[in-house]
Amino acid sequence: MTKNTKVNAAILIIGNEILSGRTQDTNTSTLAKWLSSIGVVVKETRTIPDDEKKIIDTLNVLRKDNDYVFTTGGIGPTHDDITAESVSKAFGLKYQIHKEGFKILESYYKPGEFNEGRQKMIWMPENAELILNPTSGAPGFSVENVFCLPGVPSIMKSMLGGLKNKIVGGKPILSHTISLKTVESEIANSLTKVQDQNKDVEIGSYPFFHAGKLGVSIVLRSENQSKIDICNADILKFVEEKKIKIVER
Amino acid sequence: MTKNTKVNAAILIIGNEILSGRTQDTNTSTLAKWLSSIGVVVKETRTIPDDEKKIIDTLNVLRKDNDYVFTTGGIGPTHDDITAESVSKAFGLKYQIHKEGFKILESYYKPGEFNEGRQKMIWMPENAELILNPTSGAPGFSVENVFCLPGVPSIMKSMLGGLKNKIVGGKPILSHTISLKTVESEIANSLTKVQDQNKDVEIGSYPFFHAGKLGVSIVLRSENQSKIDICNADILKFVEEKKIKIVER
Repeated sequence: MTKNTKVNAAILIIGNEILSGRTQDTNTSTLAKWLSSIGVVVKETRTIPDDEKKIIDTLNVLRKDNDYVFTTGGIGPTHDDITAESVSKAFGLKYQIHKEGFKILESYYKPGEFNEGRQKMIWMPENAELILNPTSGAPGFSVENVFCLPGVPSIMKSMLGGLKNKIVGGKPILSHTISLKTVESEIANSLTKVQDQNKDVEIGSYPFFHAGKLGVSIVLRSENQSKIDICNADILKFVEEKKIKIVER
Repeated sequence: MTKNTKVNAAILIIGNEILSGRTQDTNTSTLAKWLSSIGVVVKETRTIPDDEKKIIDTLNVLRKDNDYVFTTGGIGPTHDDITAESVSKAFGLKYQIHKEGFKILESYYKPGEFNEGRQKMIWMPENAELILNPTSGAPGFSVENVFCLPGVPSIMKSMLGGLKNKIVGGKPILSHTISLKTVESEIANSLTKVQDQNKDVEIGSYPFFHAGKLGVSIVLRSENQSKIDICNADILKFVEEKKIKIVER
């Protein structure tokens, strides 16, 4: 996929453990940072339960609305791992043993250990492309613009390197942060003016209250470094006028 | 709202900083744990940008599909805080100064400090109900079944206590965790049988690989403690047969 306009993606986290609050999701942040670095803008994330109908319906919306969709979770060997079968149904594809995946896991395990439970991990949609797993053997897979990754954060992260040639991003999104010893309401009006004068830069304002420090981080994001520099200068101008201190974060 | 069936909710995180990966969301987990404890099942979470149309469209889907919707983010004083105005538009309500909210902030700030930037924080949908903020003054608000909270995690958390009387949950969802020194594929078949025999208990299987330990946590969830106990006994039976060690997590 090559395009001149922005390349966007959705992240779909599949798993009851996130919705119950038992597990703190970190995959969204890992994926979002990585996608940002290769010029892919994350437009939306959703977390849904291990529920076949919900997975199918959600995936069929997201894959039409976005250039790429990344799912995490539900591709292990247990009864609650239903992502691969649900993805097959979403695309109307057969759910079957992936021959190349079978060979990989057959040689990964000791003789006799590649049991039925483990074989479930290489049941995939027909003609799925494998996403290799350098950490623990069992691969992920992709179908068209949908990339299915495991839920365990360390394993998921280890598989992103193998995706680089499959994802074509736009220009990388650059960012610059200015942290100030102030409160948002002191700078709100000035910041609105700067945003109005710098329409192509996304300006975010984020209060912080931790590690004994209190302040506001202003984050400038754009594909264009010189536009960020101009916007940054406009901000530094009112920061100096108001005698606000710039702080480290 | 009182009902005998399950009470469900959606969480809507609003903010570019989560989608860029800059900020790790923790509000979902905080809200999900709290809702679980009062018998509300989180069916879905979404994260979307500070984009008016997207907020309106998403909110209008979620508020119809769920008993409750909780939003976080976008209710501060800066230009990128557009949640309150977008919620007004989603409901077709006027966006205006909340009189009670005005009084609260007027007395919260020192004379002369309740400036235009700060006043933006009490612009809300017509007839919104306030959600009081014990930490930093500026209140959240609710309209019908939609509850709008701030994005800063410590402030958001401090406001949940004030919601207790406004949210009517179903039976609390109880859970029990058994952590085993094994891998998922060793127990997958046995676990499938136990799930088939205990349809009213949701059984989740979650591998863990951290703090030098490797294993699987099995999480049983149900409104009914005796059903959890029966399911637990079924699991302990195969654990003993397979001579799998139970571990602390």
